[in-house]
Amino acid sequence: MTEVVDRTSSSNRVAAETAATTQPVEPAPTVDVAALGELLLGKWAHIRHTARDLAGRPEVHKIEGLTHTEHRKRVFGQLKYLVDNNAVHRAFPTSLGGSDDHGGNIAGFEELVTADPSLQIKAGVQWGLFGSAVMHLGTKEHQDKWLPGIMSLEIPGCFAMTETGHGSDVASIATTATYDEATQEFVINTPFRAAWKDYIGNAAEDGLAAVVFAQLVTRNVNHGVHAFYVELRDPDTKEFLPGIGGEDDGIKGGLNGIDNGRLHFTDVRVPRTSLLNRYGNVAPDGEYTSPIASPGRRFFTMLGTLVQGRVSLDGAAVAASKVALTTAIRYAAERRQFNASSPTDEEVLLDYQRHQRRLFTRLATTVAASFAHEQLLEKFDDVFSGRHDTDADRQDLETLAAALKPMSTWHALDTLQECREACGGAGFLIENRFASLRADLDVYATFEGDNTVLLQLVAKRLLADYAKEFRNVDFGVLARFVAAQAADVAINRTGLRQVAQFVADTGSVQKAALALRDEEGQRTLLTDRVQSMVAEVGSALKGANKLPQHQGAALFNQHQDDLIEAAQAHAELLQWEAFTEALGKVGDPGTLRVLTWLRDLFGLSLIEKHLSWYLMNGRLSMQRGRTVGAYINRLLVKIRPHALDLVDSFGYGPEHLRAAIASGAEKERQDEARGYFQAQRASGEAPAEEKSLLALKGRKSS
Amino acid sequence: MTEVVDRTSSSNRVAAETAATTQPVEPAPTVDVAALGELLLGKWAHIRHTARDLAGRPEVHKIEGLTHTEHRKRVFGQLKYLVDNNAVHRAFPTSLGGSDDHGGNIAGFEELVTADPSLQIKAGVQWGLFGSAVMHLGTKEHQDKWLPGIMSLEIPGCFAMTETGHGSDVASIATTATYDEATQEFVINTPFRAAWKDYIGNAAEDGLAAVVFAQLVTRNVNHGVHAFYVELRDPDTKEFLPGIGGEDDGIKGGLNGIDNGRLHFTDVRVPRTSLLNRYGNVAPDGEYTSPIASPGRRFFTMLGTLVQGRVSLDGAAVAASKVALTTAIRYAAERRQFNASSPTDEEVLLDYQRHQRRLFTRLATTVAASFAHEQLLEKFDDVFSGRHDTDADRQDLETLAAALKPMSTWHALDTLQECREACGGAGFLIENRFASLRADLDVYATFEGDNTVLLQLVAKRLLADYAKEFRNVDFGVLARFVAAQAADVAINRTGLRQVAQFVADTGSVQKAALALRDEEGQRTLLTDRVQSMVAEVGSALKGANKLPQHQGAALFNQHQDDLIEAAQAHAELLQWEAFTEALGKVGDPGTLRVLTWLRDLFGLSLIEKHLSWYLMNGRLSMQRGRTVGAYINRLLVKIRPHALDLVDSFGYGPEHLRAAIASGAEKERQDEARGYFQAQRASGEAPAEEKSLLALKGRKSS
Repeated sequence: MTEVVDRTSSSNRVAAETAATTQPVEPAPTVDVAALGELLLGKWAHIRHTARDLAGRPEVHKIEGLTHTEHRKRVFGQLKYLVDNNAVHRAFPTSLGGSDDHGGNIAGFEELVTADPSLQIKAGVQWGLFGSAVMHLGTKEHQDKWLPGIMSLEIPGCFAMTETGHGSDVASIATTATYDEATQEFVINTPFRAAWKDYIGNAAEDGLAAVVFAQLVTRNVNHGVHAFYVELRDPDTKEFLPGIGGEDDGIKGGLNGIDNGRLHFTDVRVPRTSLLNRYGNVAPDGEYTSPIASPGRRFFTMLGTLVQGRVSLDGAAVAASKVALTTAIRYAAERRQFNASSPTDEEVLLDYQRHQRRLFTRLATTVAASFAHEQLLEKFDDVFSGRHDTDADRQDLETLAAALKPMSTWHALDTLQECREACGGAGFLIENRFASLRADLDVYATFEGDNTVLLQLVAKRLLADYAKEFRNVDFGVLARFVAAQAADVAINRTGLRQVAQFVADTGSVQKAALALRDEEGQRTLLTDRVQSMVAEVGSALKGANKLPQHQGAALFNQHQDDLIEAAQAHAELLQWEAFTEALGKVGDPGTLRVLTWLRDLFGLSLIEKHLSWYLMNGRLSMQRGRTVGAYINRLLVKIRPHALDLVDSFGYGPEHLRAAIASGAEKERQDEARGYFQAQRASGEAPAEEKSLLALKGRKSS
Repeated sequence: MTEVVDRTSSSNRVAAETAATTQPVEPAPTVDVAALGELLLGKWAHIRHTARDLAGRPEVHKIEGLTHTEHRKRVFGQLKYLVDNNAVHRAFPTSLGGSDDHGGNIAGFEELVTADPSLQIKAGVQWGLFGSAVMHLGTKEHQDKWLPGIMSLEIPGCFAMTETGHGSDVASIATTATYDEATQEFVINTPFRAAWKDYIGNAAEDGLAAVVFAQLVTRNVNHGVHAFYVELRDPDTKEFLPGIGGEDDGIKGGLNGIDNGRLHFTDVRVPRTSLLNRYGNVAPDGEYTSPIASPGRRFFTMLGTLVQGRVSLDGAAVAASKVALTTAIRYAAERRQFNASSPTDEEVLLDYQRHQRRLFTRLATTVAASFAHEQLLEKFDDVFSGRHDTDADRQDLETLAAALKPMSTWHALDTLQECREACGGAGFLIENRFASLRADLDVYATFEGDNTVLLQLVAKRLLADYAKEFRNVDFGVLARFVAAQAADVAINRTGLRQVAQFVADTGSVQKAALALRDEEGQRTLLTDRVQSMVAEVGSALKGANKLPQHQGAALFNQHQDDLIEAAQAHAELLQWEAFTEALGKVGDPGTLRVLTWLRDLFGLSLIEKHLSWYLMNGRLSMQRGRTVGAYINRLLVKIRPHALDLVDSFGYGPEHLRAAIASGAEKERQDEARGYFQAQRASGEAPAEEKSLLALKGRKSS
């Protein structure tokens, strides 16, 4: 059989191949792989192309099986390669050789994950955290003094915020920086073991300096957490400077190319001017001033730079999910196992319903997360470029990042694991990369903001919005608000979805039950759930802030689980909305049709996941509920012929996948095996099967 | 504050400590930790104690950060240590120095997982697979000839069954062993690349011999898969013998202490007597004979030895889950984060509702899996000791193992990950072992039978039972069957639960809805679900076996997902029944009370997980459904004071946990930090908070 490989679309080929084994499909639409690819690349497509070209080079690839010491050395060398190839300066000021391009910088950074997540995160420590802190929290003098060395890697540095005793609760860190008027210096101290800086990238070996976060105390007043530029090691001997000590965090579950470590400070003195003083300053006489009067707001403003870490992890997690699904789906389209439907030919894995369920639902979620990430990145760029940089914009950005990062990082771990299992023993071999990527991405779920903590931030915001909108409103206002909501859907792309009290039995929900498969039906169900969950917790917590602290906390704690569920529901809705909006940008009818099936699969999967809620709250009838699973199964069959096109549209080449089982080797093996048996049967020399002989004998004797 | 550490029970201490922050609890029962510990250890407690003593020794511990080459060397050395310490011969014949103790052998094997899963699995390859195949598939001559060398490790060997092209579908392997009458030899051949043996432990370096599975062909008839003893390498040079070749599988996602590899054979000749001929023999003249007439039954009998791998993985997965939960719960009981309920003191993690949900639901499942495993192990011992070794017994054992192994291995991965995340960054450090254990246990989900494939075997058995019971029965018979069912519940401990058509709206289901918290209510709901799901798929597939093969397969495929769900429901019911039966063995009332809460938490968690099914199928009303989550939340609060006792009852010491964060170090750090701030406040020298000063100023000026 000669085979024509059509690079643009494999739909027809696959459809023909599978027609024999699955039920006949309606005339198949085709996917415009190239156009869909560009849509997925988004606004910074050009930078992603450049970054992928770089990430595809062997120089930056992870070598498996190195000791952590060797891996660290290799990654440090690769950081220099990134500098030499202009890959990491996009966010820095044009005046210093950067390009002042915040969104583009993150887009490029994200693509590094396919090379080696250690390289990505180590670059993130150096330029995204350490350098970025100097840039955003310092003033021009600080930037001019330190950024050139940071950008060139002459000064490898740390972002010394987290302490052993405090991770996500940054406000409670215990390191102090006390101003000494006599010498015009800050004296940095670690008061006890729990206040050691911990898990700090670059701290164990490479860091010559650090931005150290500490409670700023002057004139015996604690002005809260501020950042200080502190030299750590002698650049020649690499020994700690006096008063500074530390430990190596040792081997980790992944990311072993990074030298995480601990740091502690005993009476370490830095000049007054080493305070990165954009948001808070101490005069020579010890007087504290700040452009932001509220200590709370000041704290959140300073921590605002952290959001770029969350944004970029969201994108990196999506990229890793795409890589994993590309490999697993290609393998599943070639691998044959068990001859269910023919006595001689075995079934292709991707034709099994369960296999489709395992991979296609995750494919749909990945595409949703990809479009949602693009919206987050655009919002981020709007804020950081200064184009839309109000307090409200920043808060929306923070909330959006806090909602999406947990979803995408957990999704990546789930997807990497499911893909690894779907490829069986081959999936466990490091040469196929699932296990390696999974180990490295594991910590994405808890660093740069623990996912569970982030979702609680989202929930808090949802509750605050709820309280703001419905404090003392009459029913007329409520009704208008709900109406405004519906109209607002199309333009409300980046911000938090407003929360409205939603009366359960409105006409629109009933309609939704009838139109589960329609866009509006899905939207109404998903939106209603968020609104109702928030409203329910909101009423339960009414007045909690007026109770004594421990009683209020206990009440809150009784609803913690519900709150986190509500935040997740909100994040899922944001992903669904982003996917749906993206459909509006698809011109090609075939692509639109297939992508709409995929969006429906995402929406229906969400509804199936939370089906008990819809049933318990009367949003879906028992009868309607029973149709959800069946409809999902039908969508799987529709998507099957397009699965290869969809993963092709992700645009990752063999230099990014680097998986032996995504290379076509399995198809070669299968073809060879089938050819062998066909030839044997044709030759008439195949040994008879004992089973067949027995059957024959049985028939003869009876 | 002086502290009395009560080794028997920490309930009261914890209750006192948490009383301040959670709502007042009713007079707390106490757990008899020692007695519960013995109950959990089960029938082979004495062997588990010995094995844990061994597993606690540094000689057998995993050293993190070794290269895979170093790790392999270390583990091979440890195998000898196991031999020298009489740890691995329990299953072998007494005549050869073993103790003919099959259950005890598995119990001891399981405990090795806490030392190093690589050591466990490499020992499993050598004695549980390679040695076991010679013992069970060979005759006395084979045993006498080879077992002494296998037992002493003089002959390290392989179990060469899996091929690159075929994993779980063993019947389809393509390696051939063709009998040559002229020389009275079998000629072993690998016909194509997909037929290479793959993922074979001991194949890359250490294996001197192998039990090779191949299609036995004699007189041009293929009698199906048989096992052959084949020498692989020259014992002196370690070079492959003529005709044999192979490859190293390289680095894997875990278990890197094992040298997995590939093997292929080109005209490799072995004597006729190298056929392990207990279940099939070839006479010198080439005539094939077997004590088992049916080729199908013969195949499953020969493969029956594989069940011990599944049994032992089930137990090892439970052990790993226990270790992880012990560490995570101890840490959560010491770690403080965020001062929700007091201006000065931070909350203990374990008092957060979400944290309780994350850890206690998994604790409940772990205990259920532990009791279910004990039943499986007893069943296994009954069969392998020959005490109860009918065909039906073997089939029940196979089905039970196929049901439980997927549940416990997936549960272990889920638990290790949740524990790792619940410990944040500390959880990611290899010194706390979650990531290391998770990486090593990853492949437990797909080897020794892919979990998804195993669940389909279970489903097939459920359907067969369904068909057998209800073919041509009248309604009277059906009614009697249902009644017999109910009476049979208590004694039906190890076998497959019989499947009966269950009429949806019987009185007993309605009663269940009213008595969600009662044992009978939970049992009825869980049992009903299995029965109904099987009946539903059963009717849908009625007549599928009379359709042309491809149509039958397509119909089956449309219900594959439902089938797997039904098998899981069945496995969950088995776990719940095992937990419930174990309650009957608890004498101490306090322990019984706490353990009953934990069983209820398990049962209710299952019902919550599948709540949409119960609602859609009218088994629970909307109102009743809404109480499930709330009741679970109340159980969490009740279990909280006993969480430390429960994990203490698992009986793992610091030599097994080997986690820095389970050592009490966190409590020391927290106490030091709190002491520092208390002293600072007492001294009056604490710096004022800017925030408090502002608030004061605000009040003064207004």
